[in-house]
Amino acid sequence: MTSVTKLTVRYAETDQMGIVYHTNYGIWYEIARTNYIKDIGYSYSDMEKIGILLPVINLNINYISPARYDNNIIIKTTVSKISSAKIEFFYSTYIEGDEKTINTGSSIHAFVDKDMKLMNFRKNFPDIYTAIKNSI
Amino acid sequence: MTSVTKLTVRYAETDQMGIVYHTNYGIWYEIARTNYIKDIGYSYSDMEKIGILLPVINLNINYISPARYDNNIIIKTTVSKISSAKIEFFYSTYIEGDEKTINTGSSIHAFVDKDMKLMNFRKNFPDIYTAIKNSI
Amino acid sequence: MTSVTKLTVRYAETDQMGIVYHTNYGIWYEIARTNYIKDIGYSYSDMEKIGILLPVINLNINYISPARYDNNIIIKTTVSKISSAKIEFFYSTYIEGDEKTINTGSSIHAFVDKDMKLMNFRKNFPDIYTAIKNSI
Amino acid sequence: MTSVTKLTVRYAETDQMGIVYHTNYGIWYEIARTNYIKDIGYSYSDMEKIGILLPVINLNINYISPARYDNNIIIKTTVSKISSAKIEFFYSTYIEGDEKTINTGSSIHAFVDKDMKLMNFRKNFPDIYTAIKNSI
Repeated sequence: MTSVTKLTVRYAETDQMGIVYHTNYGIWYEIARTNYIKDIGYSYSDMEKIGILLPVINLNINYISPARYDNNIIIKTTVSKISSAKIEFFYSTYIEGDEKTINTGSSIHAFVDKDMKLMNFRKNFPDIYTAIKNSI
Repeated sequence: MTSVTKLTVRYAETDQMGIVYHTNYGIWYEIARTNYIKDIGYSYSDMEKIGILLPVINLNINYISPARYDNNIIIKTTVSKISSAKIEFFYSTYIEGDEKTINTGSSIHAFVDKDMKLMNFRKNFPDIYTAIKNSI
Repeated sequence: MTSVTKLTVRYAETDQMGIVYHTNYGIWYEIARTNYIKDIGYSYSDMEKIGILLPVINLNINYISPARYDNNIIIKTTVSKISSAKIEFFYSTYIEGDEKTINTGSSIHAFVDKDMKLMNFRKNFPDIYTAIKNSI
Repeated sequence: MTSVTKLTVRYAETDQMGIVYHTNYGIWYEIARTNYIKDIGYSYSDMEKIGILLPVINLNINYISPARYDNNIIIKTTVSKISSAKIEFFYSTYIEGDEKTINTGSSIHAFVDKDMKLMNFRKNFPDIYTAIKNSI
């Protein structure tokens, strides 16, 4: 499955180069993976409430061309890998109406509990694990 | 007492006007009041651990002239008022080496516990209350 | 006219109190006033391109009750005043599905040119001035 | 050369997990590389003024253990590579008083001019190029 997220560049997200400040893509990825989880019928917010946290353990971002204030941004998100311990998302970013990829990236997350201890996600939450696995 | 905070403008804090994006002053005020509390011998971080939270209930900022990337900023902080229920800080911002005030502001905070319930700060934490009161 | 903006709270916008960090409302207001200008048929992005900048000269925010991660937020925006030199917006914030106002605020902006010099907005850009004036 | 940057975690940098929100490390890296350039006798701010911009083309961050509000953070920065077209910085992050690395990362930057066009940095700015090259 590919989940599609749309957002508009905020003024606060620009910097004095006149382009989107580079770490904001990492924030956009987070919105994109939240939407991915919604698209398969779950809620990251509810997952946290039942004790599933997904802290980022690796973030990798490639900047191809800049985005600017008020641009309509499209982020296409897929899950590239999932195991009992980790999940990896992959992101491609576009400006609406233009086929050109402006940015790609990935994030790897550990499955941890409320005390930030690693858990066996497949064993503890087989339904959500399977839903994500089947969406790949 | 006047507490003095120094910081340097981050690239991330600029916007496409080439100046500091306006809400960052609110973030700087937070650093400034944390320093104020350190200057009177307490730690806001420790206060939170023992169940004293100070959510903002009013923030007011006047922008007189802009700050720019890499500027060395000085924020002078005072407590203007404290009661059992609330505290008000006042902030004046300068660029180092220049007498001109570039920004003034204030923040009002409620004293609440971990469940975000209002508390009687003077009664529950008389030592910290008195230390702040005496610093005015 | 009242302009209505919808947005969803980002994880990045929360703090360790588990609520939206207070300066983010200022960022949301900026999105809200951009939408206000779109609703009357103009674009703030285009206004900047023709040399109309609206730096904030005062920001005032009242925090009534907190917003949390993944909340759907509604911001109702009006223009409270406009003159040749300044414009004031007023904002009321809600959580979708709840009538209770969680936050109110205002921002005052100067009309300046690309060199950050004050301009007579009514005289220089009578069409946009009138469109805004008539929307009050 | 290794450049050492110290900073204190801001409240605004925490999220509802009670730890530093992950993209803030990217902002800290920017402060760290600005200091690196200062340590070899140049100023990134001045470099921008004479038309040398260093947009990020890749950002990679590994999160080993979390940082928290009010932690004193140390970032050790080195340049791992420089060419006519690109420069790569490497960052290691610690909590003051603890030897354990909590975070490592790298950023790759292109040398571009004010119009965001790629330049030959070695040829156009041989002095700064040599100063950086010699610092590796």
